[in-house]
Amino acid sequence: MLLTIAYDGSTFHGWQKQPGERTVQGYLEQTMSRLFEREILLSGTSRTDAGVHAYGQRASFKADIGIPTEKIALVVNNALCAREGSESGRGGFAKSPIRILRAEEMPPEFHARFSSKGKRYIYKICSGVNELCAGSDKTQYSLVFERNYVYHVGSRLDVEAMKEAAEQFEGVHDFKSFEASGGNPRETTVRKMFAADVRQVAADSDCGLQRIEFSIEGEGFLYNMVRIMTGTLVEVGQGKRSPGDISEIINAGNRQMAGHTAPASGLYLAEVFY
Amino acid sequence: MLLTIAYDGSTFHGWQKQPGERTVQGYLEQTMSRLFEREILLSGTSRTDAGVHAYGQRASFKADIGIPTEKIALVVNNALCAREGSESGRGGFAKSPIRILRAEEMPPEFHARFSSKGKRYIYKICSGVNELCAGSDKTQYSLVFERNYVYHVGSRLDVEAMKEAAEQFEGVHDFKSFEASGGNPRETTVRKMFAADVRQVAADSDCGLQRIEFSIEGEGFLYNMVRIMTGTLVEVGQGKRSPGDISEIINAGNRQMAGHTAPASGLYLAEVFY
Repeated sequence: MLLTIAYDGSTFHGWQKQPGERTVQGYLEQTMSRLFEREILLSGTSRTDAGVHAYGQRASFKADIGIPTEKIALVVNNALCAREGSESGRGGFAKSPIRILRAEEMPPEFHARFSSKGKRYIYKICSGVNELCAGSDKTQYSLVFERNYVYHVGSRLDVEAMKEAAEQFEGVHDFKSFEASGGNPRETTVRKMFAADVRQVAADSDCGLQRIEFSIEGEGFLYNMVRIMTGTLVEVGQGKRSPGDISEIINAGNRQMAGHTAPASGLYLAEVFY
Repeated sequence: MLLTIAYDGSTFHGWQKQPGERTVQGYLEQTMSRLFEREILLSGTSRTDAGVHAYGQRASFKADIGIPTEKIALVVNNALCAREGSESGRGGFAKSPIRILRAEEMPPEFHARFSSKGKRYIYKICSGVNELCAGSDKTQYSLVFERNYVYHVGSRLDVEAMKEAAEQFEGVHDFKSFEASGGNPRETTVRKMFAADVRQVAADSDCGLQRIEFSIEGEGFLYNMVRIMTGTLVEVGQGKRSPGDISEIINAGNRQMAGHTAPASGLYLAEVFY
């Protein structure tokens, strides 16, 4: 069975189950195991970090749960909301931070991670917060209410330069410069990116706030790769680097050459391809 | 000194300090007392409930903190972000759920609560979530990412009927029917409402989601009053009640006659008047 899952990562210590930590996988396996009265073990596609969100995480499991596939999302979501309601004290109004979007039957050899052909991530930036909007209440509200959902950058960014820089990620490259230490050992740091784009998503009307999305689609990603790419793109947008620097950074094969690691809050696992 | 404060109420057990609970007042007093190395006691205007947000809470305090008034917001916000950064492990990227918008010097007799001439609340509703958008991913994302910030209502609502109903709250009325039990004893349940309005705030484009705001401005409010008003207006929007019922409900002076109490998540203390 394959689940498509959306979650707000801000109250979780990432996807992957870890003893003593509140994780998406742990929370979901526990809720489903109680509901179906048997042990449910999920294989997720992407081990999103603490604070990273998902619009379309995928996870597969093998278990005969004895209910029709088209009812699975409904009953699991009900169980998730009931758990949230009792744990938060908000009762029937409570919504769950995790939601199953759909369930699909898959052939027995299917595995959410190993069968995946690629993934798309979106990174959301909200810039122009300090410099042009000092004192604007709308800016301040964004800092408060969107603190877990975007990356707030003080200065306005040059979107065209960022777009030009992002396009250089496309194709097959060795992305060693964009890998944080601490990931699992890898055979190679070469990865194929299908598409990379940067665009301003909202009209520049509300008090100078600039909303930018970086979208990247690739066969596979290294540890913290999208966050380091984003940090580097932000520095391009600030004029600290030029779009042409990207190929040099790639060629260097050295993490020190790339930009800072953008925070987890702006990152969304958008889609998984099979 | 008078502070204007915005906060995300979703991780707090309301404004008012309570032993053993994470409250906005408690968190802020503690942060400010450490920062200024003396005890800071805040008098807030409104004791917002657990989960209720603020765009413009006010709180006054008396203490000689020895820094210029125009620097107070900056230094307190820095301290709040530093505390959040160390407690969340997110370091320099951490934003605080509480933010001081401004600080103003006030005459010695001023008190944030007793000097107040009135308040404005906004209640945010997101409707049309189940019926018209079943299966739409955008709807599901709203349920996940906005679960703490709006009231999700399944059916689409008749905004014109809600607006007509809301207007009947304006003027001086005995609002006993709109008071929850459990509040402080009051001399009277008569309150004066300056203005009440309902409007659809976003274009009806994204997959049938309907975004509605109820705004109400009054001299004073009873316990849970805006949430019971909202629950009643939602029932009008659903066609379960007619706009003309509002005056009957007011005249009855009986909580049983009014609608359900809408959840805390959609409520924002927007403004305080002096």
